[in-house]
Amino acid sequence: MSGADGLFITFEGGDGSGKTTQAELLGAWLAEQGRAVVRTREPGGTAFGADVREIVLHSRGDIDPRAEALLYAADRAHHIATIVRPALDRGDVVLQDRYIDSSVAYQGAGRVLDPEAVRGISAWATGGLAPQLTVLLDLDAATARGRLDAARTRYDRLEAEAAEFHERVREAYLAIAAAEPGRFLVVDAALPVDEIAALVRDRVAELL
Amino acid sequence: MSGADGLFITFEGGDGSGKTTQAELLGAWLAEQGRAVVRTREPGGTAFGADVREIVLHSRGDIDPRAEALLYAADRAHHIATIVRPALDRGDVVLQDRYIDSSVAYQGAGRVLDPEAVRGISAWATGGLAPQLTVLLDLDAATARGRLDAARTRYDRLEAEAAEFHERVREAYLAIAAAEPGRFLVVDAALPVDEIAALVRDRVAELL
Repeated sequence: MSGADGLFITFEGGDGSGKTTQAELLGAWLAEQGRAVVRTREPGGTAFGADVREIVLHSRGDIDPRAEALLYAADRAHHIATIVRPALDRGDVVLQDRYIDSSVAYQGAGRVLDPEAVRGISAWATGGLAPQLTVLLDLDAATARGRLDAARTRYDRLEAEAAEFHERVREAYLAIAAAEPGRFLVVDAALPVDEIAALVRDRVAELL
Repeated sequence: MSGADGLFITFEGGDGSGKTTQAELLGAWLAEQGRAVVRTREPGGTAFGADVREIVLHSRGDIDPRAEALLYAADRAHHIATIVRPALDRGDVVLQDRYIDSSVAYQGAGRVLDPEAVRGISAWATGGLAPQLTVLLDLDAATARGRLDAARTRYDRLEAEAAEFHERVREAYLAIAAAEPGRFLVVDAALPVDEIAALVRDRVAELL
């Protein structure tokens, strides 16, 4: 671990689970406490990341799944080395939208590559840098379905598949969190925004 | 291994050791034997590879070494999946200039990353595809120095460093070959071109 006083916090969860909102609220609170905050995300955040993203979007459909996973790992290696580690070394708090757990959860749900191999490659890419805290915004199936229902009147096959995929991602996330309870704060993403923010703040306060 | 009748042969060795010439001569001989031959190299060979090469050249100096290694592994994954495996599945002979051994030897000589970790990532990238034969064109230090001497009258510091680096790459290659004698044909690259070609043909004939 780099950074004696730096703090590395990641936000995980499905799309629409509120990661960006919670990172914003936590960042504002940390700034009030006088902490320097760096907010970042993967992929992207560097010119290198933008180039990598361009290749992936450019080749979508024709790209070997291992090649794609390695490209994202390359972006992660560069992002951690050039953005995250320097910030932690300065003593900043880094709030990052998605990290290794995302790769593992989505591979576990997609069932293309071995999720543990994907974790191993990311661990090598980052020199083993682990967050002190990972906030998992857990969106239960009923709420996820409710949000879908609000937008459309009936399920078609694609939506049913999307709901199934969402559920597999969710289960993969919960399994990762269960394996490392000390690192994770699992919060019900269906709670009111302010209530979630208070739970996150309480946990972060213990780490400051 | 893919391809019941396909044959995957790689050429390794330092720059100027004659890999391209020997691949050409072997390819011509195999064609005379009625075999379909695919000649290829890494990085490159695909649009994806060209994009990856562009990022590496574009970012040189500023790129994290792990990120660079992962980019090359991504190129390798794509190249093997889209060019090499389909050719082997058709029963072709694939002659490839540089493969995993290059990554391992150059990392071993460069002393930045752990060469065995680099091998592990490449093995994952390629689904463990190993060549049936690797021809190592071994250029001894005296010959390498002789070629330098022919071009310039005296060594400066950079040339001395280059000679040292060449020797470390050479030692790394020889150690890899010693660990897998069944896969390797080690040839003295200072021998006449036709003599080397005959040694390579004799070994390949046993595999046909």
